[in-house]
Amino acid sequence: MIAKKMVGMVENSSAIRAMFEEGQRMAAEFGAENVYDFSLGNPNVAPPDKVKDSIMEIICEESPVQIHGYMNNSGYDEVRRLIAGHLNELFGTKFSANNLVMTVGAAGGLNVILKTLLDPGDEVVVFSPYFGEYRSYTSNFDGVLVEITPNLVDFQPNLTEFRQKLTPKTKAVIINTPNNPTGVVYSEETICAMAEILEQKQKEFGTSIYLISDEPYRELVYDGVKVPYLTKYYRNTIIGYSYSKSLSLPGERIGYLVIPDEADDSDMIIRGANVANRILGFVNAPSLFQKVVSRCLDSHTDVSYYDRNRELIYNALREYGFECVKPQGAFYLFIKSPVPDEKSFCAKAKEYHLLIVPGSSFGCPGYVRLAYCVSYETVENSLPKFKELADFYRCSK
Amino acid sequence: MIAKKMVGMVENSSAIRAMFEEGQRMAAEFGAENVYDFSLGNPNVAPPDKVKDSIMEIICEESPVQIHGYMNNSGYDEVRRLIAGHLNELFGTKFSANNLVMTVGAAGGLNVILKTLLDPGDEVVVFSPYFGEYRSYTSNFDGVLVEITPNLVDFQPNLTEFRQKLTPKTKAVIINTPNNPTGVVYSEETICAMAEILEQKQKEFGTSIYLISDEPYRELVYDGVKVPYLTKYYRNTIIGYSYSKSLSLPGERIGYLVIPDEADDSDMIIRGANVANRILGFVNAPSLFQKVVSRCLDSHTDVSYYDRNRELIYNALREYGFECVKPQGAFYLFIKSPVPDEKSFCAKAKEYHLLIVPGSSFGCPGYVRLAYCVSYETVENSLPKFKELADFYRCSK
Repeated sequence: MIAKKMVGMVENSSAIRAMFEEGQRMAAEFGAENVYDFSLGNPNVAPPDKVKDSIMEIICEESPVQIHGYMNNSGYDEVRRLIAGHLNELFGTKFSANNLVMTVGAAGGLNVILKTLLDPGDEVVVFSPYFGEYRSYTSNFDGVLVEITPNLVDFQPNLTEFRQKLTPKTKAVIINTPNNPTGVVYSEETICAMAEILEQKQKEFGTSIYLISDEPYRELVYDGVKVPYLTKYYRNTIIGYSYSKSLSLPGERIGYLVIPDEADDSDMIIRGANVANRILGFVNAPSLFQKVVSRCLDSHTDVSYYDRNRELIYNALREYGFECVKPQGAFYLFIKSPVPDEKSFCAKAKEYHLLIVPGSSFGCPGYVRLAYCVSYETVENSLPKFKELADFYRCSK
Repeated sequence: MIAKKMVGMVENSSAIRAMFEEGQRMAAEFGAENVYDFSLGNPNVAPPDKVKDSIMEIICEESPVQIHGYMNNSGYDEVRRLIAGHLNELFGTKFSANNLVMTVGAAGGLNVILKTLLDPGDEVVVFSPYFGEYRSYTSNFDGVLVEITPNLVDFQPNLTEFRQKLTPKTKAVIINTPNNPTGVVYSEETICAMAEILEQKQKEFGTSIYLISDEPYRELVYDGVKVPYLTKYYRNTIIGYSYSKSLSLPGERIGYLVIPDEADDSDMIIRGANVANRILGFVNAPSLFQKVVSRCLDSHTDVSYYDRNRELIYNALREYGFECVKPQGAFYLFIKSPVPDEKSFCAKAKEYHLLIVPGSSFGCPGYVRLAYCVSYETVENSLPKFKELADFYRCSK
């Protein structure tokens, strides 16, 4: 008796989340130290101390009616002003508070902007592999998801196919760099080429195509890699940001949208995003944490923690014979399954108490995702199991 | 270029919010003490001290990775267990953690449950006057809002018309008691009669009709009035609760849904609500405040603060000749406009620096809503202005 659209979703309920709960069950049965749960992007690094200090300061110094009250649907003016100023300093942009809408994480932000933009039947382009939730977010507003097949060489987007699949119905393109699930950072060359194609197609169709950049991993990069700030490369860019990873606050649901003045119809989009924030039931981003993040603009989670894990697991898995691209950002490895059916590979891995997620969840079957945002000990202790798993496949060949 | 459905919404952007911003502008121009802003339900009472104490305790005692991390989409098990236990103690119900889904306020909860239940074209019945956002929430999922005309005598629901307007397409009925905008509490007699009609129609149509009870004002009642707990009167009841008013935390976006085991298809609805919480972009209710409210179950905002305002303004307005029902709950007065076009009444009131909201926003033209969740001084100082306003209409007759 629930909605027809929901029945299938409930039944296939996110492979990632199901695995998370399975991991908890196994941990209870076998002991947490004997289960190696690489299934969920739940940071295992504590937030910077500045988060705790800021909470204390705010609740001791400011009026509780102000801290916990309603404000404009787009968020506190002062918070948006501070974030805009910080972005301008970092990237040489010219945002004001008016370009910012505080949101319930990036997931909230993406729903707000898609609600604002999409008419039923509008197309939203994504590059496989992509965060599987984009499918649901697009479907929420009766949009049509258009997948670009993966470039299995280096997981940079396949721009030849991209050019072919843009149509007069294309309303938005979602990109995510550093990428979940590959850890790949799209190069400046890629971004420039993508922007050029978009400009050309906009002209050809006489439409506006919005490039939505989902950026929860922006600060999680290694080896000094730079992540281009996309509003500088393409006018119709909208940024969806989250503090879930950069400040290790995923449960608090705090992020923002940036809608630059240069974007076509920016004024209507900003006003629409405010209305969407309200009517979708978010109303506003959680108030205390708006204030907290505005005091933590220069603080970041300890990237070296993830980097240590990355080096350890990437090198070990390569040594055991697994194939994968070395991630430059985020905290995921995207590994080629030793057998074509990667779901059977995940099931086999589970027998070794290794929890990983099938690539089908990301529009890229034949691969699996491993989230290494766990403790270093978990990575270390899991290695003999990965070795056994590799041996199993080597022997069964 | 934004979505067609959004254009009208942006243009008519909530009268309540627009008024809120107008109030801020006027306060800046004339001085805050000279503008009497009764437009928004933004509590002016500080949260109980227990809220601040709980925040301090949690961030000092618990692991930050736990406090700010992801959990099950339905919320922390322990938090849901504590809330279920508390409800059972208060109301003699038999809920477990499994019946609770923590949500981003009641607005988030209503969107989650409507996403879970509604197929396009399904009907959602509301009793005028009603919180105007129900229209948007229903429209988000392509439901059809069916309004029952108001009973202008005492604002109890019009059950004769209710019986006539239930159809095989009716999927849900939303009620809100204590009511925004009237402050009326639906009597036990009303609830029993409503339940009987629903049972009868379910049998007649062979359908399930869910009664969704939106309860942000449950604890805000006066004169010892009791608000019936609806799951005890009608099996297919779903509760949407918010701590926005009971703990004065509207900006923090924290509430829950109760989906009782007795409800038809409860298991699928609970699972659906979890998926909906995720895919709508809420993901989970803000994590720190889940923990905070679970420590504040016995704390409540100071109702006597609102009661004092209620007595003062109700008695004064009656004395000046305005007509309204004395509210038994919430913090609103619903006043009959002295002229049929209540929007012109609101515009006139604004000339006296009195900000109130047209009843059309609540499906009840000819009336206006006054939110008295302001300081006592604001109420006191506004009275001469209301007197002048009343005199204006008396003289112009």
